[in-house]
Amino acid sequence: MLPPLRIGLAGLGTVGAAVLRLLERQAEVLTRRTGRKILVVAVSARDAAKQRGVDLSRFKWFDDPADLAKYGEIDLFVELIGGADGVALACVEAALGAGKSCVTANKALLAKHGMRLARLAEEKAVALSFEASVAGGIPIVKTLREGLAGNSIERVYGILNGTCNYILSRMETEGLSFEQCLSEAQKLGYAEADPTFDIGGFDTAHKLAILTSLAFGTVIDASAIAIEGIESISLADLEAASELGYRVKLLGVARRTPDGIEQRVHPTMVPKSSAIAQVMGVTNAVTIDADAVHELTLVGPGAGGEATASAIVADIADIARGVRSPPFGLPVATLSEAENAPMQLHRGGYYVRLSVFDRPGAAAAIATRFAERDISLESIVQRRRPGAGDETPGAVPVILITYATHEKIIREALDAVVDDGFLAAKPQFIRIERE
Amino acid sequence: MLPPLRIGLAGLGTVGAAVLRLLERQAEVLTRRTGRKILVVAVSARDAAKQRGVDLSRFKWFDDPADLAKYGEIDLFVELIGGADGVALACVEAALGAGKSCVTANKALLAKHGMRLARLAEEKAVALSFEASVAGGIPIVKTLREGLAGNSIERVYGILNGTCNYILSRMETEGLSFEQCLSEAQKLGYAEADPTFDIGGFDTAHKLAILTSLAFGTVIDASAIAIEGIESISLADLEAASELGYRVKLLGVARRTPDGIEQRVHPTMVPKSSAIAQVMGVTNAVTIDADAVHELTLVGPGAGGEATASAIVADIADIARGVRSPPFGLPVATLSEAENAPMQLHRGGYYVRLSVFDRPGAAAAIATRFAERDISLESIVQRRRPGAGDETPGAVPVILITYATHEKIIREALDAVVDDGFLAAKPQFIRIERE
Repeated sequence: MLPPLRIGLAGLGTVGAAVLRLLERQAEVLTRRTGRKILVVAVSARDAAKQRGVDLSRFKWFDDPADLAKYGEIDLFVELIGGADGVALACVEAALGAGKSCVTANKALLAKHGMRLARLAEEKAVALSFEASVAGGIPIVKTLREGLAGNSIERVYGILNGTCNYILSRMETEGLSFEQCLSEAQKLGYAEADPTFDIGGFDTAHKLAILTSLAFGTVIDASAIAIEGIESISLADLEAASELGYRVKLLGVARRTPDGIEQRVHPTMVPKSSAIAQVMGVTNAVTIDADAVHELTLVGPGAGGEATASAIVADIADIARGVRSPPFGLPVATLSEAENAPMQLHRGGYYVRLSVFDRPGAAAAIATRFAERDISLESIVQRRRPGAGDETPGAVPVILITYATHEKIIREALDAVVDDGFLAAKPQFIRIERE
Repeated sequence: MLPPLRIGLAGLGTVGAAVLRLLERQAEVLTRRTGRKILVVAVSARDAAKQRGVDLSRFKWFDDPADLAKYGEIDLFVELIGGADGVALACVEAALGAGKSCVTANKALLAKHGMRLARLAEEKAVALSFEASVAGGIPIVKTLREGLAGNSIERVYGILNGTCNYILSRMETEGLSFEQCLSEAQKLGYAEADPTFDIGGFDTAHKLAILTSLAFGTVIDASAIAIEGIESISLADLEAASELGYRVKLLGVARRTPDGIEQRVHPTMVPKSSAIAQVMGVTNAVTIDADAVHELTLVGPGAGGEATASAIVADIADIARGVRSPPFGLPVATLSEAENAPMQLHRGGYYVRLSVFDRPGAAAAIATRFAERDISLESIVQRRRPGAGDETPGAVPVILITYATHEKIIREALDAVVDDGFLAAKPQFIRIERE
């Protein structure tokens, strides 16, 4: 039998405590799986006295996680501190530098410093694993890095933020406003007091940056991601989407296009019949389009202590078994600098909702602005909608669904419609993503 | 750089040819992923002259795959011959015995001889990998063996046979009979001329036997699986199911129960809102309930040359990277002999369709037979259904949905109903599986 794998764990919040419990509960079977004992020997957290439902007396305590990272009696450092820089970065760098493998759930850290840390791990021939950093308990990192090793990937997209999906699901099923659902999510602990990071799409973007690199073998470039949050989505949009056979989801999408790799995070209309449209509440889902496997979808919990711990323990077990491969599947030195496809060149269908002053010729004028630019319309719906509530007096909603066109063209058409002076409010548009 | 991984591939049907093409197409990236070249050096098939769209002149040809299995110039043997015994078994045993790793897509072989072959692989410290044997391109073996290594699994279930799911999907969406859809599936190449193996549930059972072992750490016992096919499912069942909010799928289900491990393959009613109910056509899906991750669902192609090749190439890449672990996740010697929960003790809800002679008191008498046995009914529907067509003259369908009860009890209740003489035909019942 191999010598035990000795772990130092920094960060004892919900996830850290769940990792300790899971390693203990599964100790026997993990030893059989990996051929060795997996032992947590030392921990670090901000407050030693806090009650966590776990007996910490067995572990050596470090006040400073940086000391734990370099501690000579550990083989593996588990970073659950959080934050893109500062302590987390210093600890992971120190641990890798000292020749210790690292497991982290820190998507912000990876989105910003992933390449540098992966290069360090490769130099030291240790593992840097981060299954828990994307989509919680869903083994999407392993699937992209190993399970689809023989595929050339065309697109990866998914629901990567449970808070947003919870809010959009509740709005649709209960007919509540965005503000009502956000406040509800905050009460339930699904959203932070300052929810910007989630609802603004930034959390999704961090995760997407990691998926893009894994899927396309490219250097992480989070700055290339076009990001829009869900703040602008109204009940009127969800109702109109539903009538037209669509549902609105906040998606992260990375796609290989003739113009380069497109990375974007935005509210997206998906056909109700699609697998991704069925995913409600805090659940996450990722779909991969690839040349050999065609389409693969994984659906599961995107957050929560136990689900995240499941991913962390799987990483630990792989490291215990001696599995070593480049953290991003390919050696960092061979990752390509992706050509970034600009959003203006994005091609797809669009949903457009206009609040139009109820004057003769308005709808015709609008249709003309689209026709001039060769934008074909799949549908156009104009009517007085009793009770919609958010229309300016004297204005009626006009909903259009376009066939595939370019972002640049649709924006020009909307600018022209605005200039015509028929609109009572800023036009709303939502991109459509098809299977 | 490591020396090349040299492969011998036996069986050049659709899948074998797709593996050759995929390895060639992805050669450069696979080398970067694994740190070594992956080279097919020799092949074997029944007919050397057959056109396969692949240039075989580069490979050494073996008329007898058993010679290829022992060939000194290969490190890895890929078995795509098929069949539970005979040539496939002899070849895999020979290759493992000669210290070569093996990759196979052969579920029948594994369901019957998996333990013996895994033990041999462990003794020789080589890999025996079989991702492609279950659910085609879905990386379910890797997910169970590695991705959920820290979980205790409660249930694994799924749509594991594309032929059956195609037939059931077509029956429901097009209103066609079982026979019509089967004949259509045969024309499209989704079903064999003798479809018994697929529609009788036997193919699903082989795959389930493998999943059960991976999920519960038990010795494979395919003989313990209760198997029912989809032959008895009529359009009337699908229509009644749909009205009640259910859809019928052929599922393989393995579940940990107080009475032991339950393994069963049968047509199953699933709530329309469930993830598994959305899976239509030849697509496969597997859902895992586990303590840490709660619920994880994977959806993807269950068959097809390219999708199956995707799984085989992923196995090859893992072996090239030097990953070695027990084929069934745990050493065979430590797998437990499962206590098999008998079907009579199965507990769940049931759908029952009775063809009842239209006499006063019939429905009341039937309800009494259920009430006597404390079977609670979620719903009972009796009506004359114009156009249903398959009822005996003078008989009307009565549909019941029960709350959870035991298989033994429901069978006793149905026997009593039959004895009462109200039925014009054998009662139909379908088990309900909830999320």
